[in-house]
Amino acid sequence: MNELSKSHLKELCKLKQKKFRETTGKVIIEGTRLIDQLLQSKIILEEIYTSNADKLENSDYSSSKIFHAEEFQLEKLCSTKHPQDIAALIEAKTNPIKDKKFLLYLDGIGEPGNLGTIIRTAVAAGISGIILSPDCCEVFNPKVIRASLGTVFFLPMEIHDENWLKMQDAKIIVTTLNKSLSLFDLKRPEGNIILVLGSEAEGVRKEIIELADFKVKIPISKNIESMNVAVAAGIAMYHLMLTDEHGK
Amino acid sequence: MNELSKSHLKELCKLKQKKFRETTGKVIIEGTRLIDQLLQSKIILEEIYTSNADKLENSDYSSSKIFHAEEFQLEKLCSTKHPQDIAALIEAKTNPIKDKKFLLYLDGIGEPGNLGTIIRTAVAAGISGIILSPDCCEVFNPKVIRASLGTVFFLPMEIHDENWLKMQDAKIIVTTLNKSLSLFDLKRPEGNIILVLGSEAEGVRKEIIELADFKVKIPISKNIESMNVAVAAGIAMYHLMLTDEHGK
Repeated sequence: MNELSKSHLKELCKLKQKKFRETTGKVIIEGTRLIDQLLQSKIILEEIYTSNADKLENSDYSSSKIFHAEEFQLEKLCSTKHPQDIAALIEAKTNPIKDKKFLLYLDGIGEPGNLGTIIRTAVAAGISGIILSPDCCEVFNPKVIRASLGTVFFLPMEIHDENWLKMQDAKIIVTTLNKSLSLFDLKRPEGNIILVLGSEAEGVRKEIIELADFKVKIPISKNIESMNVAVAAGIAMYHLMLTDEHGK
Repeated sequence: MNELSKSHLKELCKLKQKKFRETTGKVIIEGTRLIDQLLQSKIILEEIYTSNADKLENSDYSSSKIFHAEEFQLEKLCSTKHPQDIAALIEAKTNPIKDKKFLLYLDGIGEPGNLGTIIRTAVAAGISGIILSPDCCEVFNPKVIRASLGTVFFLPMEIHDENWLKMQDAKIIVTTLNKSLSLFDLKRPEGNIILVLGSEAEGVRKEIIELADFKVKIPISKNIESMNVAVAAGIAMYHLMLTDEHGK
């Protein structure tokens, strides 16, 4: 096993910044659970850095180049305050969308925890892919990766503006706070659908609301002005999935 | 308007620590949006600290004692990195549960953002109250307050262990990852119900699973091991609310 050199570490630490992730197309991931999960999903880890080589005995790391890293090196490399004893280098690449049966369009989701949670929930619900508006936060932000449980690396995702939406042969369902049709009164329309959720502060932009075939809201108590966007996304995705399968 | 003195600020800063919140029964809340929301809900703010007195013209702060605070004082007082120009002192007190029609029992929710989001969603869904196990994170943690949009101050909440559950005249519905009844195949039972959600890492403890009248799971794709607990809570609360109202 090679030692992690000072100059190598310095290069890797640059990947904490978005601009270096974008120019190199690489990102650092952290922690045993995430790394094991990605290995199980057959995702290739280019390099692995660990202070505890015993960890490597249980999993198949054979396609990765392995480096011994000191604890202080892992602390520098990782974005969590108390990093675990393993990190890895992986290609920052999303998969293209092939199946368009049920897509999610995210319009300006800005909070990394929300974006990651939505991606995780989309995988759980069996959604075929996510389209992100250009102003969504970066999917390879370490907080997004963590909240997504690593699903950013396999759920198909693409970035498009509203012009893309105009060209789709799909029913567009937009969630809003104001319009009066309850989500629960909408059955999943026939054919392809695109469910749209908007930013935490502003909701879905007007230009996109105008493209909607259906405007729906999740009914909420008058004691509160809105619900968390990741929770709303989960409720809406499951409702639309189930009204299909169960024919409710 | 009084100036915020050095010694007063020093005392207030102690409230960043859980033990002082518990001994004094007070907590600091931050930001215009949250403060306005609580005023609208007729919750009394004991003291207000602001660097921008113009803010006070639009709302009714008449029952609060108001202090002028410098920006650096607000920075010391607040737990956010870039605090806004207003903060307030409020009683750290939850309301007792009266209506037991539909309660949520949270077993060891440890992450403040999740707890706050669950409380916010419970208010949105119209749940009558939340029971927290003694090992849940503190509801007056600033991150919980923020994620809850301040609803911690009005949603009825109590802390009880599993012995409390045993004494309730209610159907207990426990969410698990393993058992085979789909949540969506369960109609809301007659009478009072208690929906139980477990910790992020461990789920619901065995002692509580044993008390269940119904064990349910939210069906998830085989590509992922679990969903976020706040999203799961939202999906389950809305499902049970709706199967009641709509008689689905």
